[in-house]
Amino acid sequence: MASPLPVSPLAPARFPDLPAIKGVELAVAASGTSYKGRDDLMLMRFAEASQMAGVFTRSATAAAPVDWTRAQLAKGHGRAVLVNAGNANAFTGQQGIATVQHTTARLADQLGMAAADILTASTGVIGEPLDAAGLAACFGQLKNTLGQASWQAAANAIRTTDTFAKGASASCQIAGQPVTISGIAKGSGMIAPDMATMLGFIATDAVLDQPVLQACLTAATRQSFNAITVDSDTSTSDMVLLGATRQAGHPPITSPDDPALAGFQAALLEVMQDLACQIVRDGEGASKFITIDITGATSEASAYKIGLAIGNSPLVKTAIAGEDANWGRIVMAVGKAGEPADRDRLKISIGGIVIAAEGQRVADYDEAPIAAHMKGTSIHIAVDLGLGAGAARIWSCDLTHGYISINADYRS
Amino acid sequence: MASPLPVSPLAPARFPDLPAIKGVELAVAASGTSYKGRDDLMLMRFAEASQMAGVFTRSATAAAPVDWTRAQLAKGHGRAVLVNAGNANAFTGQQGIATVQHTTARLADQLGMAAADILTASTGVIGEPLDAAGLAACFGQLKNTLGQASWQAAANAIRTTDTFAKGASASCQIAGQPVTISGIAKGSGMIAPDMATMLGFIATDAVLDQPVLQACLTAATRQSFNAITVDSDTSTSDMVLLGATRQAGHPPITSPDDPALAGFQAALLEVMQDLACQIVRDGEGASKFITIDITGATSEASAYKIGLAIGNSPLVKTAIAGEDANWGRIVMAVGKAGEPADRDRLKISIGGIVIAAEGQRVADYDEAPIAAHMKGTSIHIAVDLGLGAGAARIWSCDLTHGYISINADYRS
Repeated sequence: MASPLPVSPLAPARFPDLPAIKGVELAVAASGTSYKGRDDLMLMRFAEASQMAGVFTRSATAAAPVDWTRAQLAKGHGRAVLVNAGNANAFTGQQGIATVQHTTARLADQLGMAAADILTASTGVIGEPLDAAGLAACFGQLKNTLGQASWQAAANAIRTTDTFAKGASASCQIAGQPVTISGIAKGSGMIAPDMATMLGFIATDAVLDQPVLQACLTAATRQSFNAITVDSDTSTSDMVLLGATRQAGHPPITSPDDPALAGFQAALLEVMQDLACQIVRDGEGASKFITIDITGATSEASAYKIGLAIGNSPLVKTAIAGEDANWGRIVMAVGKAGEPADRDRLKISIGGIVIAAEGQRVADYDEAPIAAHMKGTSIHIAVDLGLGAGAARIWSCDLTHGYISINADYRS
Repeated sequence: MASPLPVSPLAPARFPDLPAIKGVELAVAASGTSYKGRDDLMLMRFAEASQMAGVFTRSATAAAPVDWTRAQLAKGHGRAVLVNAGNANAFTGQQGIATVQHTTARLADQLGMAAADILTASTGVIGEPLDAAGLAACFGQLKNTLGQASWQAAANAIRTTDTFAKGASASCQIAGQPVTISGIAKGSGMIAPDMATMLGFIATDAVLDQPVLQACLTAATRQSFNAITVDSDTSTSDMVLLGATRQAGHPPITSPDDPALAGFQAALLEVMQDLACQIVRDGEGASKFITIDITGATSEASAYKIGLAIGNSPLVKTAIAGEDANWGRIVMAVGKAGEPADRDRLKISIGGIVIAAEGQRVADYDEAPIAAHMKGTSIHIAVDLGLGAGAARIWSCDLTHGYISINADYRS
């Protein structure tokens, strides 16, 4: 099923060194249920007194694990996260729900906790029954090896069509005490807000109450996982979970408005933006990483919508694949976003050079530096609407023959 | 610029025989302003007492000709339509507006009518100044040859990346008198509601008052040009104009609710659906023509939105290119549409065979006929949401390497 794809040309040079988080143990296993010869199961256990937060796909046809995990979090549960790769357990009807109930109960027995504390995520093929017994056969091994797996091994175990493992970390201080954040993610296609075939699992030792943790995650999601697009398709299985073991030394933070949170919020955003951009860099067939800055929109929401219209446009994405600074297609995409825009106030820059303003091409702009910019792998597009103060940054990738090759063959 | 592309494998066998419309004269010319060695100008003159109606792109960055033509129609003008191919005169600032004023004034002089009666449309490259003098140099020839060009020649003159000329006709009766409708269209990329890089020019001899004509055009647009998608990109230049010469023999129709209109409405819809589907069949790189029927939605608008989510999904479109009956991606697309859907009530059929129902794959469905269907060039997808009476039909095409090849190279 998952053919061995070449590593994305936009991949980081190597997997980063991710610090361990006090109170978090990782384990991986190879169930053989979908893939052969590689890990496809990942378990992340959080120490007692940990708190969990999550954000989920808004798909109306969400997968059974999404329904389960969302429900347990809403009730305040969550101490362990089980992830399998290769089968999304999505659109599997009553059988899919039974599978989730079965696997979480079996794993709960192994770990000596309530089934409600087992959060679960699945990624891979839609519509195929998940082999629950095959997964459960590995639960003893997972329990016995907890704490032995690295972040990198965990990131590898959750890959599907990803061509590289994705991890990021950052540190900060809360009330003078050091706090660490480490996380992993997967995703490379079916990527769009609201999220993607995109899973993210992030841990911190910060001492945050659950509502504070949730508020931090939700706030950072908007400018990270919800600001990326590969193909405008939203998965049925997306989720990002953020667990806090509360083992850092600072006093508990009980309000999301506590100013002591500022450093943590910035660090969390850094980790989540890093992971989100790695997903774009692994966009199926991507050869160019695109940053789109929108300013001057009538609101932030309007700026996001315009940025996504550009980032999702097949004509913009193919032009960039062809190294063509085709600002006319950017004008088109702005126009189709359904948001306030004035053709004669638009200003469009590519690679930092203003190419169109006041409703027309800038006379005699220097094409040479723009042409050089287009030949690179990091493309920058800036659009100023000249209407207000709304701004947003969106990340996308180009649309190439590679995307067609991958998706005309892979049954996901 | 426009490389000679191979004719779409989905093209009709030949251009249809389009009946002349009493009171309509056509002319074509080769201005040489964008293309060499082919016609790129088309003039359609309507007899006095004709009425004109139009629908236009909703792009917020519409091109100067769209602004002009919309404004003249709103004031009740319109006796001739001038179309140039190769340059869209879009995002050309004040110069673009001046160009429209100049060309319409010059052509009005030639034809002995007011400039306000000259409607104009341009299609092609965005952001390049249009050579108004080059066009105007042909106006004498256009005038002198009015009535000599065939519908096929007119359809050819408005092509850009189109691989075949598009025409359709139908006839009907109003109050026992024969009425004829003939029309042409162009478009193959940047095709999505609300319309496309899509131009349509339709003529009839029906005796309709202008508000009746406009109501008929608007109603038929929803189920034709606004029900197609190639790449989800909406052009800055789209328009469809419908002119009525009022030379058929029946009494004037003065109300859009007149029951005598029923046959005309059906015939107009037939022509417009035929033209719209020809545009999809010429979708850039298309190898499969896709019909998507949505039923059981909570409303007609909801059904359209769900149908377009499927028709626009790159993952659905690439799966079809790969002849993979990947209903999981259809579930995904339904889920992302943002419309009411219940995973466990969805019913999905491909090629007339129910493949998924009640939240899961149908056990032991016969794959052979579905596989055979997927190898054909006309793919049918039916989705029943099981929620209400809302229904819609959408047409799309697959997403292939051909789309990438065309759009990574062509500057439009």
